[in-house]
Amino acid sequence: MKKRPSAQILCVGTELLLGNVLDTNSHTVSVGLAELGINLYYRKTVGDNLDRLVFSIREAIDTSDILVLSGGLGSTVDDLTLEAVGKAMDIPLEYHTPTLEKIEAYYRRKGVVMTENNKKQALLPKGAIVLENRQGMAPGTITEKDGKLIIALPGPPRELGPMFREDVMPYLAKRYGASVIASRMVRFWGLAESAMDERVKDLTSLEAPTVAPYAKNGESMLRVSARGESEEECLAQIEPVVEEIRRRLGDYFWTDFEDSFEEALVHELRASGKKISFAESCTGGLCAKRVTDVSGASSVIDMSVVTYAASAKQRLVGVRGETVEKFGVISAECAEEMARGIRELSGADIGVSVTGLAGPTSDEGKPVGLVFVGVSTEKKTYTKRYFFPYENDRAHVRLLASSACLAEALFTLRGKE
Amino acid sequence: MKKRPSAQILCVGTELLLGNVLDTNSHTVSVGLAELGINLYYRKTVGDNLDRLVFSIREAIDTSDILVLSGGLGSTVDDLTLEAVGKAMDIPLEYHTPTLEKIEAYYRRKGVVMTENNKKQALLPKGAIVLENRQGMAPGTITEKDGKLIIALPGPPRELGPMFREDVMPYLAKRYGASVIASRMVRFWGLAESAMDERVKDLTSLEAPTVAPYAKNGESMLRVSARGESEEECLAQIEPVVEEIRRRLGDYFWTDFEDSFEEALVHELRASGKKISFAESCTGGLCAKRVTDVSGASSVIDMSVVTYAASAKQRLVGVRGETVEKFGVISAECAEEMARGIRELSGADIGVSVTGLAGPTSDEGKPVGLVFVGVSTEKKTYTKRYFFPYENDRAHVRLLASSACLAEALFTLRGKE
Repeated sequence: MKKRPSAQILCVGTELLLGNVLDTNSHTVSVGLAELGINLYYRKTVGDNLDRLVFSIREAIDTSDILVLSGGLGSTVDDLTLEAVGKAMDIPLEYHTPTLEKIEAYYRRKGVVMTENNKKQALLPKGAIVLENRQGMAPGTITEKDGKLIIALPGPPRELGPMFREDVMPYLAKRYGASVIASRMVRFWGLAESAMDERVKDLTSLEAPTVAPYAKNGESMLRVSARGESEEECLAQIEPVVEEIRRRLGDYFWTDFEDSFEEALVHELRASGKKISFAESCTGGLCAKRVTDVSGASSVIDMSVVTYAASAKQRLVGVRGETVEKFGVISAECAEEMARGIRELSGADIGVSVTGLAGPTSDEGKPVGLVFVGVSTEKKTYTKRYFFPYENDRAHVRLLASSACLAEALFTLRGKE
Repeated sequence: MKKRPSAQILCVGTELLLGNVLDTNSHTVSVGLAELGINLYYRKTVGDNLDRLVFSIREAIDTSDILVLSGGLGSTVDDLTLEAVGKAMDIPLEYHTPTLEKIEAYYRRKGVVMTENNKKQALLPKGAIVLENRQGMAPGTITEKDGKLIIALPGPPRELGPMFREDVMPYLAKRYGASVIASRMVRFWGLAESAMDERVKDLTSLEAPTVAPYAKNGESMLRVSARGESEEECLAQIEPVVEEIRRRLGDYFWTDFEDSFEEALVHELRASGKKISFAESCTGGLCAKRVTDVSGASSVIDMSVVTYAASAKQRLVGVRGETVEKFGVISAECAEEMARGIRELSGADIGVSVTGLAGPTSDEGKPVGLVFVGVSTEKKTYTKRYFFPYENDRAHVRLLASSACLAEALFTLRGKE
């Protein structure tokens, strides 16, 4: 990079200052700017107040090369960001025809009469580069004046995130000649972070590529990152290290898919031409939901059931009344019959079951966090006992229980179980 | 409150600007200040840079009554917050004996020799009120000069959170005779934010109580807030306005439960002694997952199914082959048979079905985002067509489709459909 430019972030919205919404956009933008090697001097949040907004824009532009604005691009009277940009930088606003047409088409399709204020989202700084919003209505804009850049992005994180990474970062990288950063995330299941750290201590002290440990939601992770002139140059540094990590920790190796557990599972099911089906109790549909989060899941899952009540376990997947009476529904025995039952009901290659206590109240004299996972294939059926000691966090127990199901399914598919 | 004071938040730490750590402290402090009725003008984050830190402290104190600082109180050379406070406000620092003793005792207990920089955490602004850190080492301080308050708190959220709520908030409440703030969130489904705005324009310009519009994930919301000497006084202002809102927008009224859709549904199902069951296609288990997110859901849901493939729709909930052939699975006809089928299979009072296209690829010549919801009760069965135009956001289409299911179920339960 020739000269490292400096940047500031300005988030707009009274809802942020009132604490109604947690700001994650600043973080998203900070991460991206750091990857590009752009110096971030300040992040600031201001309410929907024109004077304070104009003041903040002027101040930021006086002291930095780039200002990234988040929020305030909607169609209500509270949405003042571009008006403030116009005022602060003395840039006129004008209607952007393609955006206006998109808004009109949207209302036509919905059969709703468009009001005058709906047009506001098409009123953009003259001469701006317009970034299409693929997740919503308000476009982003990049406006340049006197060598300074003002980048205005929509506030909803699901709109800002993709727009920042897919449109703004490449633009900045090109303009400022940034170097490339590439990284790979290697994920593990069933391995404590401290145990992982011990076994890769020498790698985490490498200068290039860097290896950074994380832990989240029961997964331990290592991010391997490198900087170089090209993607290939980065990967040439990264790949041998990933190989070494897998060599040392292969038993726990889960995936190096960037995004998620479930993508790895769907990918491997597809590759082997196999189908999966779940019988879920405590997770209440979360396993099926996670698998079907992945587009293309329809080739690996035909059906799935939530058997929440004991009666449903008996009727739908054939758990015997005797099993329920003798061992309770939170038992390895019940999980085993559920797994076998769902495989038979669905005709899938792998039947996975889960029964346990997500809390907050315990049951059958068993503690909150106790979970049994069952896996059934044509060859064999097994169960595994998990304990997630988060008494007061129902959502967390459910999430970990669903991860356990996906992990067991994947390990089974790989022939490890 | 006599006069509403104004405040700013300044977070200190290069790790925040690099995106290594997500800032949640700003949010914690924002929520607390809003509760106290203190106007927050700005939140700002600055790195570990003495000049920028001094500049930011001076600027904040010039324009507000209170500055809350977070972070930079540790013992490393990067921890500059109090040095900057001293410099910006011309206040000398001096060793605070009880803190020094706490640090010395800590190192004695660990059997480690204390270095000179460990003492740094006891070097506090002269005359400051010292707030003991029950979760860590660095104390917080409240320093007053020329009627302005500088409140410096430790950066780790588990240290800042309790200190802010247990020490700082009572101090501020006492000092400023703070009033109480109460608010109610009223949520709507099926009502565009702009249409909502149009119909409550006069209310959103009220001075007391305030009515603020929001929109998120297909819901439109109005937050009604009031300030007074007591909770009762606030509610006496809020309730007539909430009533008026419900009178105008009752058809779209969803809930005034603070947290979520699903809680409202489970609550009303329990109150009416009814049970629900889902047959989900495109949402893949998300509806059942959301209902079972709520603790105590077991009294309102016994079972639920995910019928992802056409064959599963036929086998499990009795959709006719003829229907699939003639109308396709993404059709009102299919949704209707699924809803009836799941009600019969489960024995629930309300059967809800959903079939549609979450994307990214279209099917049956139908567009991504087209979703049919079916609801079946003993009295009647109906379907509704939804269109969520988010072609490239599978997760968002699924989320909105599941919300549509919960909303239709709730409206049915209330006898509106």
